[in-house]
Amino acid sequence: MITITAFAWVPPFARGQVRDLRVRWALEEAGLSYKTRLLEQGEGDKPEYRALQPFGQVPIIMEDDVVLFETGAIVLHIGERSEVLLPKEAKARARATQWLIAALNSIEPFVMNVVAIDAFYADQEWAKLRRPSAEAFLRHRLASLSKALGDKPYLDGDRFTAGDLMMSTVLRILRHTDIVTSDQRLAAYVERCTTRPAFRRALDAQLGDFREAA
Amino acid sequence: MITITAFAWVPPFARGQVRDLRVRWALEEAGLSYKTRLLEQGEGDKPEYRALQPFGQVPIIMEDDVVLFETGAIVLHIGERSEVLLPKEAKARARATQWLIAALNSIEPFVMNVVAIDAFYADQEWAKLRRPSAEAFLRHRLASLSKALGDKPYLDGDRFTAGDLMMSTVLRILRHTDIVTSDQRLAAYVERCTTRPAFRRALDAQLGDFREAA
Repeated sequence: MITITAFAWVPPFARGQVRDLRVRWALEEAGLSYKTRLLEQGEGDKPEYRALQPFGQVPIIMEDDVVLFETGAIVLHIGERSEVLLPKEAKARARATQWLIAALNSIEPFVMNVVAIDAFYADQEWAKLRRPSAEAFLRHRLASLSKALGDKPYLDGDRFTAGDLMMSTVLRILRHTDIVTSDQRLAAYVERCTTRPAFRRALDAQLGDFREAA
Repeated sequence: MITITAFAWVPPFARGQVRDLRVRWALEEAGLSYKTRLLEQGEGDKPEYRALQPFGQVPIIMEDDVVLFETGAIVLHIGERSEVLLPKEAKARARATQWLIAALNSIEPFVMNVVAIDAFYADQEWAKLRRPSAEAFLRHRLASLSKALGDKPYLDGDRFTAGDLMMSTVLRILRHTDIVTSDQRLAAYVERCTTRPAFRRALDAQLGDFREAA
């Protein structure tokens, strides 16, 4: 049986966003069942958990003697068992990985520069001064992404992959702003990805765990 | 023949840091020869290049009909041909991927928050106000990484992998500060990785290309 970790409690704005969502979604796409181990507040900082996840974060995945952290690596690992996530053909597989890593390294850091200001530092002077340029940089980067997407339904063409899973969950973090919704192509893309039944089940499961733990 | 792109010119502080270094290093570890296509200033913004790299960055890798961008994905792709980078055994391979993605998503964004201030925004008011907390967060994150490394030579144990290639190049970005060098374990780790002959050849090749283009 696969077990993933998730938090028992997070502030309301983070519900439906915590990264175990990405792993739940991948497992749902792959048709693999799993259970969750919910961490109480502070448990991520305990030595036993830090031995499994150096930064105290969720999720990790545990199955038999495999323990992995880092959401991107977990999704690639699940993808080994699911052609929905990673095509078997080598070139298409490399491109799916390319988009997954683009989401994590070329898009998410700039998304988080804006989101961290909004969520954690909004009342600080540096954050007020910095936000316009952080948003401008992000919009510029997303315009390039939108152009690369073009009229294709998914980043690599007609087919959803792990790259789209990662990219759409990264873009979804901005739902409190109009930064994605003001771009019709990207907005439709996020909608296309996140109306997949596997995403809806993953989201319901994360929200359900927060309700149950409360 | 494998071709990678690199810049013909970057400011002095970026020489020896541009990301094609990571791909050159991976190719050297894998024993694969390559040639470079140097982009003139502004060429990254041209539609022909943007069609290959949506964000106008280097490197991309081109070989026969494969074209890939995103350094992490390129290193994983090269790793498919080299056990030095990615062990064949599935679990060890997943852990190498885990550390590669940890470098790109859990460490580099916080490194870049500090480095971007130092390199691009040092005279801006927000940057002066923000730098201490950005550095404090990064030091905290690196202390966790240092603890995870422990007394092992490499992140996953006795053996160098693509995860170490990526992590050490990310930590190297901080060489203008004492943030890594003040941690003996991390300092020795970066030294251990970057004294590998393959790294030295990669660095010499990048610096050589800048000299030749000048």
